[in-house]
Order: sequence, then C-alpha cells, then structure tokens
Amino acid sequence: MPGSFDPFTLGHWDIVTRAARLFSEVIIAVGANDAKQCHFPIQTRLAMAQACAQSLDNVQVAIMSGLLVDFCRDHDAMVAVRGARSGSDFEAESAMALMNADLGAIETVILPASSAVGFISSTLVRSILRAGGDAYGYVPEPVAQMMQKEL
Amino acid sequence: MPGSFDPFTLGHWDIVTRAARLFSEVIIAVGANDAKQCHFPIQTRLAMAQACAQSLDNVQVAIMSGLLVDFCRDHDAMVAVRGARSGSDFEAESAMALMNADLGAIETVILPASSAVGFISSTLVRSILRAGGDAYGYVPEPVAQMMQKEL
Amino acid sequence: MPGSFDPFTLGHWDIVTRAARLFSEVIIAVGANDAKQCHFPIQTRLAMAQACAQSLDNVQVAIMSGLLVDFCRDHDAMVAVRGARSGSDFEAESAMALMNADLGAIETVILPASSAVGFISSTLVRSILRAGGDAYGYVPEPVAQMMQKEL
Amino acid sequence: MPGSFDPFTLGHWDIVTRAARLFSEVIIAVGANDAKQCHFPIQTRLAMAQACAQSLDNVQVAIMSGLLVDFCRDHDAMVAVRGARSGSDFEAESAMALMNADLGAIETVILPASSAVGFISSTLVRSILRAGGDAYGYVPEPVAQMMQKEL
Amino acid sequence: MPGSFDPFTLGHWDIVTRAARLFSEVIIAVGANDAKQCHFPIQTRLAMAQACAQSLDNVQVAIMSGLLVDFCRDHDAMVAVRGARSGSDFEAESAMALMNADLGAIETVILPASSAVGFISSTLVRSILRAGGDAYGYVPEPVAQMMQKEL
Amino acid sequence: MPGSFDPFTLGHWDIVTRAARLFSEVIIAVGANDAKQCHFPIQTRLAMAQACAQSLDNVQVAIMSGLLVDFCRDHDAMVAVRGARSGSDFEAESAMALMNADLGAIETVILPASSAVGFISSTLVRSILRAGGDAYGYVPEPVAQMMQKEL
Repeated sequence: MPGSFDPFTLGHWDIVTRAARLFSEVIIAVGANDAKQCHFPIQTRLAMAQACAQSLDNVQVAIMSGLLVDFCRDHDAMVAVRGARSGSDFEAESAMALMNADLGAIETVILPASSAVGFISSTLVRSILRAGGDAYGYVPEPVAQMMQKEL
Repeated sequence: MPGSFDPFTLGHWDIVTRAARLFSEVIIAVGANDAKQCHFPIQTRLAMAQACAQSLDNVQVAIMSGLLVDFCRDHDAMVAVRGARSGSDFEAESAMALMNADLGAIETVILPASSAVGFISSTLVRSILRAGGDAYGYVPEPVAQMMQKEL
Repeated sequence: MPGSFDPFTLGHWDIVTRAARLFSEVIIAVGANDAKQCHFPIQTRLAMAQACAQSLDNVQVAIMSGLLVDFCRDHDAMVAVRGARSGSDFEAESAMALMNADLGAIETVILPASSAVGFISSTLVRSILRAGGDAYGYVPEPVAQMMQKEL
Repeated sequence: MPGSFDPFTLGHWDIVTRAARLFSEVIIAVGANDAKQCHFPIQTRLAMAQACAQSLDNVQVAIMSGLLVDFCRDHDAMVAVRGARSGSDFEAESAMALMNADLGAIETVILPASSAVGFISSTLVRSILRAGGDAYGYVPEPVAQMMQKEL
Repeated sequence: MPGSFDPFTLGHWDIVTRAARLFSEVIIAVGANDAKQCHFPIQTRLAMAQACAQSLDNVQVAIMSGLLVDFCRDHDAMVAVRGARSGSDFEAESAMALMNADLGAIETVILPASSAVGFISSTLVRSILRAGGDAYGYVPEPVAQMMQKEL
Repeated sequence: MPGSFDPFTLGHWDIVTRAARLFSEVIIAVGANDAKQCHFPIQTRLAMAQACAQSLDNVQVAIMSGLLVDFCRDHDAMVAVRGARSGSDFEAESAMALMNADLGAIETVILPASSAVGFISSTLVRSILRAGGDAYGYVPEPVAQMMQKEL
C-alpha cells in the first residue's frame, strides 16, 4: 500500500484495515521521493504510519525511496492496494496501475473509500492545518497525538 | 465476480484471469435478474462464462438470481471483484460497492481494465452485433464460436 | 424539487430536509411525464412523497405533468433544488440547469449528497427490489410501509 | 460525422459547421441500427439532417445501416468527427474511437461543444417534447419546421 | 461565498450575482491562508472583490484567515455558496462541502456555472497573464482596471 | 500542437503522428511560459521535440513564448491539436479550447489517446525520473538518448 501519507488519515486507515482482511500481509510503503514537497518530513510520516499499524498483526511499514516496482520486488509483494474516492481519483490511480503493470507486472487493487471517510484526504487535512484548524477528527488517534506534540 | 456478461468479453476475461491470481477461488456470478433486458438469454450467458472458465482451475460459474449479498453468503464468498474502465464506470461501481458493504458486509475490489481491453464493453459488442458486424475480436475464442453458431 | 421519485429514497429525504432549512417553502414536484418507464405508478410515487413530506411544515407535494419551467411559473417558484452524488451526476444536472435557466430563467441549486446516503439512488433501490431483496433501509419509514403493503 | 440525430440539434449543427471548415468534405451518417429505440423514424431523421446540410456546400447526408468502419470504407472517409459536452461524454466517445481505430483504422476527432450549445442534447430535446414543451430554440430552423408539421 | 479570488473573474461574478438573488445577504470571503501561493497579494484580491461587490446592495466582502466554519460562526452565516464548472470541479467541491458539514454544520449550495462563463477560471486568467496576454475580457470591469494599473 | 513537453513522451508522439496524417502541416509549439516550473529547460524540451519531429516531413517545431492565439496568428495556424486520456483531462482541454475559440477564433481538435499509450503522461515520466527509475520505455528513442546523456 504505497502513498505519501502526508499525513496518514482515517481514509488511509479505512483502506489499510480492509486490505489487512484481504491479504495475508500488508506493507505500508511511505514514499520518500517527493519529500521536499511534503508538509511532514519523511521520518514523521513513517512514525505516523507505524503508530497506526501497530494494532494490526499483519501490517508492516517501510520507507519506499525508489520505484514502487523495485520496492515490490525487494519485499516480495505482488499487489499494490490503493483507495479511490471519486471518478477523477480513479483515473489517476488507473494510469499509475497500468504503468506499474507495465514496469514490473504489479497488479493494482482499488478499494472504493467507505461512506464515512469518503471526503477525507491528506490535502483537506493539510488545508485545515494551514488555516490553524483542528483536524484531529480526520486522523487516527496516534496521528492526532503526534500532530499535537508538534505544535 | 458478479455481472450480466451479455456477452462475456475479453474485458471480463482480463478481470477474471487477474482475479484468479489474486484469490484462491473465484466464482463468476451470472445475473439472472435483468434477464428480459438482456440480448443473450441467461442459459447462453451462463454457457459462455462456463466455456471461458474451463481453462482456469480455481474459477467456477454460477447463476445469481437474487441479491449479490445473498449469493455471497450462500457461496461463502466475502469479496466482490469488478473491473472499471473510466471515471464514470468507477462512480457506478463505487455506489454498488458501498451498498453491498452496507447490505451484507461484502468487500468490493476494483481492478482497472488493462490497456489492451480498456475500450471493450458488452455494450459495444452488442452495438457491433446489432449493426451486423463481427465482434469476434472482442470476446474469448469459446464465446466467438457460440456466437457464430447462433447465427 | 423536481424528480421522478421512483421510489422516494433516503437520498431524496436528505435533500428535501436540507432544502426545507434553506428556503421558506419547498414543493416536491413528482414528474408524470416518463410515467410508463417508471417502476411505481404516478399515484404511488405521489403518495410516497406526501407521506414523507407530512412531517415538514414548509414542504408540499404536487404532480408535475409538463415542463419544470411551466410548473415553476404556475407555483411561483424560482429555484429548482437537486441533489448530486458524483461527477457524472453533476454533469447531467448542470445540463438540465442550463436548459431551465434558458427556458424560463429558473435558477438551480445543487446540494452534494450527504456522506451516509451518498450511494443511495432510486436505481439501486429498484435493482434490489427486482432481485427480490429488502430495500427498506434505503427509504424513509413511510415509503417502506407502502412498499410492504404492495407485496 | 456519425450519430442517430434523434433529432438533429443546434449542438449537432455546431459540430457540423466546424467540421465543414476543418475537412474538405463531411458526410453526416444517420444511424439506422437502433431505429426502433428512436423517437423519430429514420426517414424523418434523415430529412432533418438533409434540410440542415443544404446550406453547406461540402456536407452530404447518408443513411448508415451497418458498422461505421464499413460506412467509412464505402464512402472513402478516414476520419470520424464527434462532439463531446462533458467528461463522461468524452469517456464514451473515447471507447468508441478506440474500437473504430481497432476495427478499421478509423481516426476519430473530438470537438468540444461550443459554450452556447454545451447543454443541448437530443436527450434533453426529447424530454422537452415528451413534456409537451417547445424545443424549437434548441434545433436548427428547418428541424423546428419539420417538428411543427408533425404535430 | 469563500474563495481565493486570484483574481476575481466573471465566473465569480456570475455566482455572486445569482447568490445575491437567492439569499438575503452574501459575504465574499477572500481566503488569506494560501497567500504565498497566490499570484495577487491578499490586499489586491480583497480590493478586487470589493470593487465588484459595490454595485450589489446585499453583498459584503471580508478576509477569511482561518477555517470557513469559524468564519461562518463569526459572521452568522449558515450556507456556503460555490460554483462548479465540471464533474471534477464538483467532486472537489463535494469533498469540501462534506468536511464543512462535519466540522461545523455548514450547508453548501453549488451553482453550476452559466454557459457564457463556464470555461473561465482564475487558473486560466493567470495563465493568460503569465503569457503576457490580455485577460480583461474574463474579469469584471473594476478588476480589469486594477490589473492595468498594476502593469 | 501546443504543450510543455516536459518531457516529450510516446503519448505526444502518438498524437503528433496522427495529427500529421490529418493536417497538411503540423507545428509542435513548445511552451516557454511556465519554464521555471518545468523539469527540463526550454532548450532541452525544444531539442527533444525537434529530434522526434525530424522523421516526419510535415511537422515543424517552434518555441511559443506568448499566448497560443498569438502563436497561431504568427504561424498562420487555425487549429490546435491536443490529446486527452480521461474525462478530467477532457474537461481541462475543453475549457482551454473554449477560451482559445473566444480569444482568437482558434478551433481545437481533441484526439483520444491510443490504447497502448493511454496511461503515459509527462507527469508519470517525471515521477519515474524522480524515483531514480528508467522511463525510456515511455519516450521516443531520441528523447531516451537525450535523457541518458543528461545523466
């Protein structure tokens, strides 16, 4: 399950818990490539994902610093799991899925976001933070605590 | 993997072969509900799917005459697999997925259509047939043979 | 608030209650034009909407047998209220809105469907009914009772 | 320029006049396949397109009773021209374009609908007619006259 | 009516004039949060909106430096008004609407852009300015004058 | 055929070869306006397009430093050619097309991306490069060589 998780939201949590029921093992791959464009540094994003994953037995967290297909080969993973909230979300996911199928025979499974978290995205959470607001309701408890400490 | 398969296309074949690699067992559930609006009768649609599934060890075919959630309970299935070709395709799939999650805790996994078959749909195949054309290039070999016999 | 309400769902109820807070008076306009393509006859659809509207002081129900712009002129209404669940939903609503603005200077206000009912549509409810299922969870209580009686 | 033109609208007129400036010769191909699902019979749809095309020197009209690729071969045409009004419109056009490229090496050129006619579609015109309304503002003058006669 | 108005366009003007007919009082809330990513500084964007709003009796302009829900509470506003031009536009608006409904019980009303201004966006206006072009046709008269002065 | 070509991909190549069959002369207009936001400098992007265009007799390459409508007037061009891969792609293209029709009577022709290259975009190529990957399979041979040299 690749992503930048900037930050890890309840939307990601929805997908990771569902993926953990579908697959024997799930790895949250926190992307390090676009680091400088991220709101939270890679170490914080990693720690957030780790804090959330702790409660799920078959979920691990790792930093992904290169291509997804290389990450998958190194970790013996064959399937990428992604969530999608809308038609244009899906279009972007679909293009990446076709590229990863082409680059390294990686299959991509898309889970439609659950009703209750369908509007939550890292982008919206960051826009709340930039406006000085409280986004604790849109992130898992451990992430909320880490955000509070940072302030 | 529910659908009306009216008829079974290379697009369905793309999804079923990929699903057969992802899951230990796959059931193609041929919908009988909207039968009268279908171009091919339920028995033909069933036979088409069966002819295709024969070559895949872990794929079965069954008629689904009620709700998907009831079919899943009766067949001990927990995941619905569906393909999507476009943003508006995904929106329709997403609504059905949320309904099935609500009706019976069924998870839905969406696979983006592969490049080569991304434009193939049962609707387009039927429009070719109605125009008196040859749609054999868009359906698996066994379906092409069954179509030819029908003429 | 025009529609065919075939049948009236919790999605419609979401929109009508929100519209009743926005505007001093709301009229549910049950469309009679496409009657023969509807699952429920116009009198049933009217009765369903009326049963739901009863609990809202500023909401009335009426049959609309011609154009929306004529209905609006006859009822001194200036604004059409519609819900939208997705991008392609909005595109269809937008085209109708522009037409009604052109035909009769009618303004159209679009309310995005609430999270909990975002997947509910009359189409999905009818597909449940056709499959012999129980759609009571997706319609207001009075509509569920009327559906049960009909069986 | 293939279509069912049921009826020919100002949206079609927008595309045909622009196509007539782009290409040396344009043929309006009125589809006869889905005839029974059409509001207007094929002869009326043909006559409507002919009445409109009269004023354009390099535009002809013909009935298309089979596949577009066969029509193109018979008429020495290499390019299909279609209009699109929205994202989901484009998705449908794109799938057909890929199919026609595959079936007979036909190129498809898509023109985005002009601002003033972006909401006009045959579907909306028919919904106005069914509601007993006056759709004359959304069709070319000759089509309006033919509609009036029919009443 | 929240936005960054970078700059205020005829598209915004379309929405604000229609909102002014729908509601007894309209406040244009010029967002100060993403200030550094904006082409025009907050004071210019405020002045542009004020210059336009002058001619409308029931429209005021204010700077919004925090969350929309806080702004609404401080100004006794209960409804956010936004325009949408396309399906993907609507998807973004819908997610924000659901968030604001959740954060502070704010209702969001979406008006589909009018035909004549449906392609105008601040993004397109800025791309014209960056290319050294004249975007005066896409902004209200007072904004055009302020742009000219700035050069 | 305007674009930033950052870098020139097989998706662009698909469109330019098809445009070269449709029109007597095609000019690839490499945009210089958003230069500083580009991964490759304008001279490299120009050289890439030129290296690809060499093999096509009726295709030229030029830098576009102002508005497309001014470029078209200066080069006696009347039609802009653009590719689109998805519904949201089309929506963005459509808005630009309407603007260019309004600014300078420029017609825009949209070609749907071919199946095999439908997922390729400059954005995806850059994301591969940023991840340290090999994107040579998604760009024409001459561009691949220029990329390799740059490393």
